[in-house]
Amino acid sequence: MDESVEQLDGRRVRGDRTRRAILAKAVDLASVEGLEGLSIGGLASALGVSKSGLFAHFGSKLELQLATIDAAAELFEEAVWKPVAELDAGLPRLLGVTRSWLAYFHHDVFAGGCFFANAQHEFDSRPGPLRDRIAEQERRWTDTLIALVQAAQRRGHIRADIDPKQLAFEFDAAGTMGNLWWQLNGEERAFDYAGSAMRRSLESALTEAGRALLDDGS
Amino acid sequence: MDESVEQLDGRRVRGDRTRRAILAKAVDLASVEGLEGLSIGGLASALGVSKSGLFAHFGSKLELQLATIDAAAELFEEAVWKPVAELDAGLPRLLGVTRSWLAYFHHDVFAGGCFFANAQHEFDSRPGPLRDRIAEQERRWTDTLIALVQAAQRRGHIRADIDPKQLAFEFDAAGTMGNLWWQLNGEERAFDYAGSAMRRSLESALTEAGRALLDDGS
Repeated sequence: MDESVEQLDGRRVRGDRTRRAILAKAVDLASVEGLEGLSIGGLASALGVSKSGLFAHFGSKLELQLATIDAAAELFEEAVWKPVAELDAGLPRLLGVTRSWLAYFHHDVFAGGCFFANAQHEFDSRPGPLRDRIAEQERRWTDTLIALVQAAQRRGHIRADIDPKQLAFEFDAAGTMGNLWWQLNGEERAFDYAGSAMRRSLESALTEAGRALLDDGS
Repeated sequence: MDESVEQLDGRRVRGDRTRRAILAKAVDLASVEGLEGLSIGGLASALGVSKSGLFAHFGSKLELQLATIDAAAELFEEAVWKPVAELDAGLPRLLGVTRSWLAYFHHDVFAGGCFFANAQHEFDSRPGPLRDRIAEQERRWTDTLIALVQAAQRRGHIRADIDPKQLAFEFDAAGTMGNLWWQLNGEERAFDYAGSAMRRSLESALTEAGRALLDDGS
């Protein structure tokens, strides 16, 4: 292999790693200070690097903010979706996702609590590209929850007459509120309440086959 | 009555009205821009008054922010609690509060959506007097929901074996998520989902007497 290509590859790998490390810090900062509070200057001083160095990676504050949203989405996928990839489709995967989602909140993946919960409230009334990107992530999350419920319906685990959007809403509501009671009130049992709420929603929606799967401890 | 006292009273009334008008604007601004984005300078220019005039009312940014939280709490009480004051204690008042709460979200009492939903997420990871004041309001809200459930239990409308905190959690979760789906996704049916979720939680918790009251359309 041509040596210059190897070098170039080496630099690219380092460049990607650097970018990832920068964005991990940006996500943490934004989860505490808000996405609007994130600036190239503030991030540079938090990382102990020069502002001009960061400008080479991100041409503007907006570009940095959009890249930060995407980086947070990757961390979310890593924490919530990756652990359930091997589970059977239908009820087992739906249950797996609700569990990994609550664990993600509980383990404080981001320094300032769920990046998306904060960003959603920060931007819900401010039209623009940031709001659009955040809303797109939220839609992707709820669409996936709905698809998981529908998959469980096709496999006969959840009753066909259940509105999948209603059930997805109730799961989303329980997890989100568990996170808020935990973050704001320091409520130790916040995730117990969230889990109980999800179980109550699910139990009235299960078929016989679904109930048998649930009792098997899947 | 001594004339100077009348004058003084008149001035105090005008002062209170001015203060209330200022804070109403502050609440609206903060609901859009965040409580941290609120400054005496920004508020002065939004109101078209001088910065020094506002400094006479609020000595510091922190004082303005704390007064804004209290003003938002008053607007919340006006919208959510006042309409149900005349309802019978127990299930009727609990149902009334959940209805007025969803209506409060739906009618966009604040320019940027629910002031408290935004402020909670903005400050959940930032220790200090603002976080404490916001957490106190959130606690007051959940404590009151819990007390309403307990009152309905004492009157035999909700089963005695129901954990009042669990039921309050589920109501809080459904309303909060309805607001988020409405604000962020523009989901038209957001409050239908929230209402259905609350009904599902309530139905499995009612006594025979409670069910009869519910069917009466209370």
